[in-house]
Amino acid sequence: MLSSKEYEEIFPALKRKINGHKLVYLDNAATTLRPKEVMDAVNEYSLNHHSNVHRSTHTLAAEATQYYEDARSEVANFINAEAEEVIFTKGATESLNLIAYSVAVSNILQSDDEILISTIEHHANFVPWQQIAKIFNLKIKYYPAKSGIFDLSDFLKHITNKTRLVSITALSNVTGQLIPVNTLIKQIRNIRQDVIIVVDGAQAVPHLPIDVKKMDCDFIAFSGHKMLGPTGIGVLYGKRKYLNMMTPFLFGGEMIDKVSTDGTTFNVLPYKFEAGTPNVDGAVGLAKAIEILESIGMDNIQEHDKQLTSYALKKLKELDFLEIFGPQDETQQSIISFNMKGVHPHDVAHMLNDLTGIAIRSGHHCAQPLMKEFGTTATCRVSFYLYNEEEDVDKLCEGLKKVWEWLK
Amino acid sequence: MLSSKEYEEIFPALKRKINGHKLVYLDNAATTLRPKEVMDAVNEYSLNHHSNVHRSTHTLAAEATQYYEDARSEVANFINAEAEEVIFTKGATESLNLIAYSVAVSNILQSDDEILISTIEHHANFVPWQQIAKIFNLKIKYYPAKSGIFDLSDFLKHITNKTRLVSITALSNVTGQLIPVNTLIKQIRNIRQDVIIVVDGAQAVPHLPIDVKKMDCDFIAFSGHKMLGPTGIGVLYGKRKYLNMMTPFLFGGEMIDKVSTDGTTFNVLPYKFEAGTPNVDGAVGLAKAIEILESIGMDNIQEHDKQLTSYALKKLKELDFLEIFGPQDETQQSIISFNMKGVHPHDVAHMLNDLTGIAIRSGHHCAQPLMKEFGTTATCRVSFYLYNEEEDVDKLCEGLKKVWEWLK
Repeated sequence: MLSSKEYEEIFPALKRKINGHKLVYLDNAATTLRPKEVMDAVNEYSLNHHSNVHRSTHTLAAEATQYYEDARSEVANFINAEAEEVIFTKGATESLNLIAYSVAVSNILQSDDEILISTIEHHANFVPWQQIAKIFNLKIKYYPAKSGIFDLSDFLKHITNKTRLVSITALSNVTGQLIPVNTLIKQIRNIRQDVIIVVDGAQAVPHLPIDVKKMDCDFIAFSGHKMLGPTGIGVLYGKRKYLNMMTPFLFGGEMIDKVSTDGTTFNVLPYKFEAGTPNVDGAVGLAKAIEILESIGMDNIQEHDKQLTSYALKKLKELDFLEIFGPQDETQQSIISFNMKGVHPHDVAHMLNDLTGIAIRSGHHCAQPLMKEFGTTATCRVSFYLYNEEEDVDKLCEGLKKVWEWLK
Repeated sequence: MLSSKEYEEIFPALKRKINGHKLVYLDNAATTLRPKEVMDAVNEYSLNHHSNVHRSTHTLAAEATQYYEDARSEVANFINAEAEEVIFTKGATESLNLIAYSVAVSNILQSDDEILISTIEHHANFVPWQQIAKIFNLKIKYYPAKSGIFDLSDFLKHITNKTRLVSITALSNVTGQLIPVNTLIKQIRNIRQDVIIVVDGAQAVPHLPIDVKKMDCDFIAFSGHKMLGPTGIGVLYGKRKYLNMMTPFLFGGEMIDKVSTDGTTFNVLPYKFEAGTPNVDGAVGLAKAIEILESIGMDNIQEHDKQLTSYALKKLKELDFLEIFGPQDETQQSIISFNMKGVHPHDVAHMLNDLTGIAIRSGHHCAQPLMKEFGTTATCRVSFYLYNEEEDVDKLCEGLKKVWEWLK
């Protein structure tokens, strides 16, 4: 890992002063800071090589197509997928909606088949299944994660011969609990081979090495902006087998083969799922972000995040005015949620920002069913990334003490 | 309008040499060149102020929210809408899919109600209606635009007491025919008051002043990247009345009020339709693009485009080896489609690029039903924007003569 001075050169926002204090950014689970190099790549593309992709022969169009397809290959290599299995979306939320709608419309599920999701999910991996099941009259079951902790063997008890689709996060956006998805997927397939397994990788893909072939998931969804990339770009990886079975989700240009008033036939993978002019700016930025992550090494990033989380857990546990949620052991990575006794999390976040320039998030973190398991409506959440270090944790603890002195 | 030297300073790509020739970019209907100022705005936001919007209290999050909502207000003012009626999407294609899915799911159409679309539409305003009608068992009718020309009185004959939704482009992306949507909408409402009228504004919004209140459309869709903005950002304007009636399209974070295993309630407008982290980079870039367009003036841009199209039509008609499609009169704006007798349009585009550095598009332009009306499968298309001038048209004509000499 680099020094904090080196990170300041890469991430201009790290030089900012917030209310007179150097910014300490601990809101990485919401979105990460942007490296200058990512924007340089986006600028170079968009100012000098931009045109519309795929559909024409002139030089700019050919260059734009090359930029876009190179970005797809970069993403595919990053997760060990084939390029045609990588679909660019506007973010993990669209990716998950795409699967849910498309599976429903394609009649892949029979009338007795059940979708199983858990109560630890982000709304993006909860509400689409719930609402699309309602629209298309599909059956949905919920695994209640007692006390907000996902328990592998307890979860497996909910897999029955009716379970046909499971959608699960690989890393909780609230507690930082790392779900052992590789083991989980193997065990689900032991119970029923043909369960379609969808992984919400929004938090995991930025923080640990992901190999979709080893994982053996059928789909994984993630967002560029949580891994140093731009907003408005995300990915859906899907196994060719299912992508071929599925009817497209969005309709329009690019994704068609033949269109007439009699009907429409569709393009091959991955274009079948990419209606309209794609976000080439975003794809180029995401590819550069991945280059940066790979130059540091995803193993190193995971190790750094683990150590920092473990250090932070130790330090935060020393503050007896905090209640910490989640496993609080080595299965926790990058994210910690807590509350200050008797103080609203918004007040804590607000005062931390004002008094110390530390940016943390407060609220339900788009995970109300999980909040319910905790018996609360909101928490404070700190989340780390490669540019954070132990000094940030020390500042956080000092800041929390100050806030406690003010508000207790 | 500015001089070509001034435009070169604004649009770096205009300084490029293509095969030894100065780039002449005539593919603006596909996507426009990017002003440096737009990317400067995106950089300033994304490197110094980026965080996730709406959900937290720290300084960066507040700044990001301000940037994003200011961009929404900029867009709203540009088309004379209210901010809460402006929904950011990833592009016009998503906007049109959003309406089609949401109208279908919301049961706004009764079983006998018909959707009417025309054969001059871009696939983005054709395939979603066709496919979503199929999925949800809705009725769809097609107005056949004879010889590829939209005829107002002929179209109105297709409005019956069963017609409940009309979706129409305001400017053909193939022929440049400007559809008199204000008159059309008035006349449709005279026949049946409660027809839902959707306008595909992808080509019109970049090229002429649009006032949604005057137009009295119920929805209009457009894309940022066709009006100097970034890729991956688009807009759906909708009347509050309909947006409130409609169930959301994409589900996830941000668009909810309360979520539990019992069900979900949704956020207020416009957030109800914006699931997930939005493309703030794109919104900021689009707002800057609109500022640039407004500083030149949409009236001036329309006048410039009209005059240039008229000049180009005159010049192209002098080339007797060309067949021109479309109205070829003052109703045509910004776009001209033609073919070189006996030569495939791809060959024309390819050679123009190689011999002269002129970028035109060739293909079906995502409008196969319209190609069928022309009795062809592909055309050459030139399309102008503010930085084009008569000299570009002269170069085009010289280039076409060269290509004809090679290929005739």
